[in-house]
Amino acid sequence: MIPPPRDLSRLCLHTMTTRPWAFEESVRRYAAAGVRGVTVWRSDFARHGPAAAGELIRASGLRVVSLCRGGFFPAASPGDRAKAVDDNLRCIDEAAALGAPHVVLVCGSAPGLPLAESRAQITEGIASVLTHAAACGVKLAIEPLHPMYAGDRSAVNTVGQARAICNQLKSPWLGIAVDVYHTWWDDGLEDEIGSAGREGTLLAFHISDWRVPTTDLLEDRGIMGEGCIPIRQIRGWVEGTGFVGFNEVEIFSRRHWAGDQERYLEDIKAAYLAHA
Amino acid sequence: MIPPPRDLSRLCLHTMTTRPWAFEESVRRYAAAGVRGVTVWRSDFARHGPAAAGELIRASGLRVVSLCRGGFFPAASPGDRAKAVDDNLRCIDEAAALGAPHVVLVCGSAPGLPLAESRAQITEGIASVLTHAAACGVKLAIEPLHPMYAGDRSAVNTVGQARAICNQLKSPWLGIAVDVYHTWWDDGLEDEIGSAGREGTLLAFHISDWRVPTTDLLEDRGIMGEGCIPIRQIRGWVEGTGFVGFNEVEIFSRRHWAGDQERYLEDIKAAYLAHA
Repeated sequence: MIPPPRDLSRLCLHTMTTRPWAFEESVRRYAAAGVRGVTVWRSDFARHGPAAAGELIRASGLRVVSLCRGGFFPAASPGDRAKAVDDNLRCIDEAAALGAPHVVLVCGSAPGLPLAESRAQITEGIASVLTHAAACGVKLAIEPLHPMYAGDRSAVNTVGQARAICNQLKSPWLGIAVDVYHTWWDDGLEDEIGSAGREGTLLAFHISDWRVPTTDLLEDRGIMGEGCIPIRQIRGWVEGTGFVGFNEVEIFSRRHWAGDQERYLEDIKAAYLAHA
Repeated sequence: MIPPPRDLSRLCLHTMTTRPWAFEESVRRYAAAGVRGVTVWRSDFARHGPAAAGELIRASGLRVVSLCRGGFFPAASPGDRAKAVDDNLRCIDEAAALGAPHVVLVCGSAPGLPLAESRAQITEGIASVLTHAAACGVKLAIEPLHPMYAGDRSAVNTVGQARAICNQLKSPWLGIAVDVYHTWWDDGLEDEIGSAGREGTLLAFHISDWRVPTTDLLEDRGIMGEGCIPIRQIRGWVEGTGFVGFNEVEIFSRRHWAGDQERYLEDIKAAYLAHA
């Protein structure tokens, strides 16, 4: 087993993790707390737009790690699929303005369609925005989502399926975001991470924990150590491929959002050093 | 695609599906409604014990399809693992007294243990009760559970993992229960069902539907047609192996339990003929 993180130098937070804070407050508090990277959500642009958001982050001494999120490609009608492509083009523009090296893709799943058809539409959707991504210097990171989201949020539910799309499209602008919450249960995960590493597609690594019991499908994630995910083991697999990116804390939790966010941020830092 | 069911001759209900009804009322209502099989839950034995329960079912013209549920083998301490084995021996006795051809196993998962270790303990636990199962003429059916239950209910989350255990233990008394709710998302499902069929381990087939959105991890299943599972396609894969068992409706739904159960039963019958 690899040792715990030495310090906070690779700690990134998703702004959604401290949702009660406005974007500006998140950035200020993260910087003051010694967090080094931030992953921005598109809703953070409401007041200032992506370019100003990026400047604020950099002026605070933080790195822009990625933009969440594009995707949601599959749809029953061609018109809706075209709209999704347009929205992804805009998202890539925003990432470029923000200064984010990549956009995370929550790929989508159309309830009326077979999962294989949704995946085909996802592949087609990604293919149709890759040229723009390359022109903007922004990579796309497919995030496989837990199978409990297969019905509505993503038909890509394993790193293996994400790799299949990457291998089909073969672009240096396309890769994978591995989130322990979505993938920890998969007995093929170690091998798939190794393969993605060799293929050069491992772009991002997200951490949180799976609480036992989990009481909500969306907003009951745990801080590292509050659940049963072997986070450090998976981080070892990821870093074993040569990955030197950030460890991005992405926690959606009504329970934690209801509490004092300053204290929560300190708890996250301590949990990161102890359990990540 | 195979045609819809011709009639109710292969329709079985799990008593948990109509939980507001006591066991005796469930059996009476199912028989009156033309349902032909019943899968019993151990809680149904509270008043009369398994032998009387089996007699009541047969006297009503119904078949005993299976007993739910054994399993929950993994535990941190050897003492707790021994208790689980004892409980499974009792469950096998109850199935024999009930006249059930098999026991469904919800295999368990110990939150503190790696999933691979939980699976090793599951294999060991099953191995230690197989002789008794054979002596009682009761088969054991491993039910792979959805990955959202990997943390606490089952470390066996795919038909592939269930097959691996069957292939390791190689016993005519061990097989697999395929539930569409738990397995529909798996892109290897068709192949795995085919392999299980060739290996002679396909013992049971459970149906319900995955609602979009699903609001509860345990008790928000849908009637067939209320969700996004390609139930008929999966039934086609199962029957393509030569499976001629029952189609067992197993729905946990607070929403449906809150309504009129007689009407619900009629809805289930109609949904079965239209969507299964």
